[in-house]
Order: sequence, then structure tokens, then C-alpha cells
Amino acid sequence: MLSIQEYQDYFLSHLKTYAVAQEPKHLYEPAEYILNLGGKRLRPVLTLMTTDIFNGHYKEALQAAMCVEVFHNFTLVHDDIMDAAPLRRGQETVHEKWDVNTGILSGDAMLIIAYRFLENYSAETFKSLFSIFNKTALEVCEGQQYDVDFETRNDVTIPEYLKMIEYKTAVLVGCAMKMGAIIAGASVNDQVRIYEFGKNLGIAFQLQDDYLDAFGDPETFGKQVGGDIIENKKTFLYLKALEYSKGSDRENLKTLFSSNPEDPSEKIKTVKQLFKTSGAAEETKKAIEDYSKKAYAVLNDLDISDAHKSVLKDFGDKLMNRTV
Amino acid sequence: MLSIQEYQDYFLSHLKTYAVAQEPKHLYEPAEYILNLGGKRLRPVLTLMTTDIFNGHYKEALQAAMCVEVFHNFTLVHDDIMDAAPLRRGQETVHEKWDVNTGILSGDAMLIIAYRFLENYSAETFKSLFSIFNKTALEVCEGQQYDVDFETRNDVTIPEYLKMIEYKTAVLVGCAMKMGAIIAGASVNDQVRIYEFGKNLGIAFQLQDDYLDAFGDPETFGKQVGGDIIENKKTFLYLKALEYSKGSDRENLKTLFSSNPEDPSEKIKTVKQLFKTSGAAEETKKAIEDYSKKAYAVLNDLDISDAHKSVLKDFGDKLMNRTV
Repeated sequence: MLSIQEYQDYFLSHLKTYAVAQEPKHLYEPAEYILNLGGKRLRPVLTLMTTDIFNGHYKEALQAAMCVEVFHNFTLVHDDIMDAAPLRRGQETVHEKWDVNTGILSGDAMLIIAYRFLENYSAETFKSLFSIFNKTALEVCEGQQYDVDFETRNDVTIPEYLKMIEYKTAVLVGCAMKMGAIIAGASVNDQVRIYEFGKNLGIAFQLQDDYLDAFGDPETFGKQVGGDIIENKKTFLYLKALEYSKGSDRENLKTLFSSNPEDPSEKIKTVKQLFKTSGAAEETKKAIEDYSKKAYAVLNDLDISDAHKSVLKDFGDKLMNRTV
Repeated sequence: MLSIQEYQDYFLSHLKTYAVAQEPKHLYEPAEYILNLGGKRLRPVLTLMTTDIFNGHYKEALQAAMCVEVFHNFTLVHDDIMDAAPLRRGQETVHEKWDVNTGILSGDAMLIIAYRFLENYSAETFKSLFSIFNKTALEVCEGQQYDVDFETRNDVTIPEYLKMIEYKTAVLVGCAMKMGAIIAGASVNDQVRIYEFGKNLGIAFQLQDDYLDAFGDPETFGKQVGGDIIENKKTFLYLKALEYSKGSDRENLKTLFSSNPEDPSEKIKTVKQLFKTSGAAEETKKAIEDYSKKAYAVLNDLDISDAHKSVLKDFGDKLMNRTV
């Protein structure tokens, strides 16, 4: 097994030599641009690593890892258009740097290119990879649609929110790992288990993102602390706080989440206080732990060495103890 | 073999029972809406028909036919956003009826759903179908990008224009037929030939569209006659006219194609005159015939009955003698 850093390096060295660029350049340049903006490359690393975990060879998983990463970047391009986001990883988004039409069409091409990477596998493996990828891709679209719908709804429930983040974020983590398992020739049972591992870890990861957005250390957290509060985003923290608070606290929270003050510092401070006093902050930490445990629970049943089980457990712990 | 009408009816009866609609409805309703707006269903009919031509059974081609039709409709949704088109087949476009974000995301989902239809085939057939479909899908995006690029270029050549319509329109016709041949178990040689047949017929079809846009009968032509002239579209007719005219005619044509008069009737009249006097109209008719002949040329070599060859020839003739 390689270290996470080594998987990353291997993936990046390939990504660099993979020249998307061809004619027409207005179609392919934006794809290359977004793919080289950086990021943790979490999903492709998981695909490579999982193939090794099931005693395959990570190099065989490279094309599937590319598929997952190109697909993920396609969603970023189209989501950024829908959110009218000017920046992505501190750089101009594709539709800002070019225009909306370029973003739409380049995104479409990236989605098709993602599928193309699967073609290199033999017919049976290909069909299995395609099946989980295709199902996942559609669920990611559904998750994005729920996210859009929630913006204008005031009755979003916690189960609905959890389903949204499961579809929008977590299933692709599960898919990335399942693809690695398929390539290694893991049993169908183990494929299901590693998918559940990835999915639950993905949910925990997203809940942690919500938590860190409010309570992260401004020194180490990459994004602006309080960003979700500024945007009145109905995260797990907010929905739990609303559920747990009563009377004036509840009204206060609702009022704050329909306000857009020019200087948001007071709003952020009060909301964070309400997140804490209501018990929502603690509850979110608990939910993160619950989903992590749910992920770890499948490890025992996997038909892999104890050393490989430890790799997965360590990976999860590392992810869950992050401050960025 | 069924008649074209019968293939259409069979396809439509299935399309109607195929309920795309599920949750989240903002994602699936627009897909259902555009799929039910009508149209000739040329591509799926060709897939069904081609399976019969190669002695398969058209019912086995239904899923591939759905794939092609859903993909085609995905391109309509995203192209209409890019063109800011308010109407499609006389009805509101998806982004008009809902909004641009809904159009982007529903289109994405339709592209994924198109792929999903291929999953019903056995691993080897599936891989062949996927391979031609995926290649075609990317070419269609490239064709759309060329079309967008041409709008702001003044040096588009005829070979470039032909490549653009080949990618944007013709390859999907070839793909639709090749998929039918693959499902019927046709030889690889015949798969290549029927693809060439479809592709060349597709180019002829698009050139004829250009021709009819200027010289079609307003009584029978579905769209507004002169629409391309009003929009200063650099069609084959225009590019040929520019190539063939000299002196004041050439300058006149160029000036007219950078004007946007409120009442375009005089402009249309003059441009049509120039299309005729320059010889471009005749040359376009000749090109249509050339591409039709190129399509028919492969028929002899196909390993199918003479009766089935006649079906293909009749289909082409019917398509080329259309006035709508």
C-alpha cells in the first residue's frame, strides 16, 4: 500500500500528462482549467486505495479514478453556474472566466468524458463500473435539485436534509470506493460493504463541513468561517437548533436567518451562541460520530487483512479529525 | 418490417408509458415535458428499423432508441439555453417555462438517463453500444461548440462548416443506425457501412434544411422561411454564395449579413436573389444529391436482402423529397 500522499502524487502526475486539450479549444480548455485548480483529490485517491485494499493493483484503478474526478469537476462547473459563484478554490469559476454558455457546454463534455474513462475495462468489469457510476451520477443530480429546492422552502426536515447531503455528496464517495473494489475483483458483499463505508463516511464528512463552517478555526479552515450563516443556509446545525429551541430563541433564530446585514459579525456571533445553547452543536458532533461509527461497523465483515482494515480506519480518523 | 408510421407509433406508445416523473419533480418534469413536445422521432425510428433491416427484432432495440431520443432532447434543452430560444416546436422552451438553472440540471439528468437505457443489454453488446454512443455524444458537443464559435468568426470555410454539421447533426443519425445494427448482431463491416449511410444522409438532411430555410414553400415548411437569413447564419448557401460572388454582389451580401432590419422582407428577397444568381442555390442542391449518393453507395455492399436495401433507399428518397 502507498501512503495517501503517494496516491495523490501518482494521481496528479497522471492528471498533468493527461492533456484534455484538443479542438475546439473553447470546449476543452475550461475542462483542463477546472481540473487543474487543485483540491484534495479525495475521491480518486479512495478509488486507487480501495483497489489496493482488496489486493488489486492501484494502477489498474487509474481510469476509474479519472472518471470519478472528472465527474466531480463537471458537477462543480454546473453547480457554480447555478449558484452564480464567482470563485472556486480562490480562482475564477469557469463561467466567470469564460461565460455561462461555455460553462454549460464544457460541463456537458466533461460528463461524457467521465464515462469514456470506463471504456478501458473488460466488458463485465465495465458493466459493473458503469452500473454504480450511472446510478450515482443521477443521484448527485437529484441531490443538487433538492439543495436548490430547499433554498426556497421553510419546512425542510432533518431526514430530508440528510437525504440531500447523502445524494449530493456522500454517494460519490461510496461509488469511488466501490469502483476500486470492483476493479480488484472483490466479492459483491464486500462491494456493498465498502460502498456503505464510503457513503456513511461521506455523510459524516459533510456534517463536519457544516460544523466547521460555524466552529472551525479561522486560522486553519480554508473557507470564511460563518459562510453558511451569512447565506442563511439550512444546514444540519440550523435545522437541529430550530428543532431544539423554543420561544424567543426560536423566533430570534428564524429572524436572523431571514436577515442579510451588511456587517454579519454580530449575526454570526448570536447564531453560533444559539447553536450552542440549543444543544445543536453537541448534537451535530454526535451525528458526525454516529455516521463515522456506522462506517466503521462494516470493517469487521470485510474479507481483507487486519492491516488493510486499519488503513481504512486510519483514513476515516484522519478525515474526521481534520480542521480544514 | 413495419412501416415508418408503425415504428413511430410503437416508439410513441412506449414513450408515453415511460414515466420519467419521480422525485424531485423539478428535475424530472422538464424532462418529461420536452420529451412529449413532439417531433418526427427520426432517430429512434431509424434505430428500430435498422435492427429489423439486419434481421433482428425491433422490439429489442427499444431501449437503444430511447437512449438516442433522450440524448437528442438533452441537446435541445441545453442548446435552447445557449441560443436564448423562447420557443421549441411552437411551445415554451424548458428554460422559459421554468428557468435556466432548471434547464441545466434537467438536461444533465437527461444525459445520464440516456446512458442508463443501454444498461439493459448484455455485457458485450452493451460495450459496443456504449462505445459508439459515447464517441457520438462528445462529437455532438464539439459540433455545438463549433457552431457557437462560428457566430463570431468571419473566416469560416466550407470544409469547417461541413465538419460542424457532421458533428452537430449527422453523427447521431449514423449512431442511431449503428446501434440498431449492433443489436441485430450485424458484422462489424456492416456496422461501419450503415453508420456511413446514416451520417451521409444526415449531412444531406442538414444541407436540405439550409436550402429549405431559404427556398422552402411557406405553406408546407414548418419554420419561418428566411429565418437563417434574418439571423445572418453562415449556412452552406451563404458560404457558397460568398465564394462564388465577386465585386458589388459580394459586398452587398456581406453588408446584408451584418444588418438586422426591423422589416426583413427586402433583405430576404435580395439575399435569395444573390443565392440564386451566384449559383450557390444550385450548388447546394448538388451537394445534397452528392451526400445522398454517398449514402446510397454503401447499400450494395451490405449483407442484407434486396428488399431491405430498398427500404433504406426509399427512406432516404422520402427524406430527401420532403418539403417540411
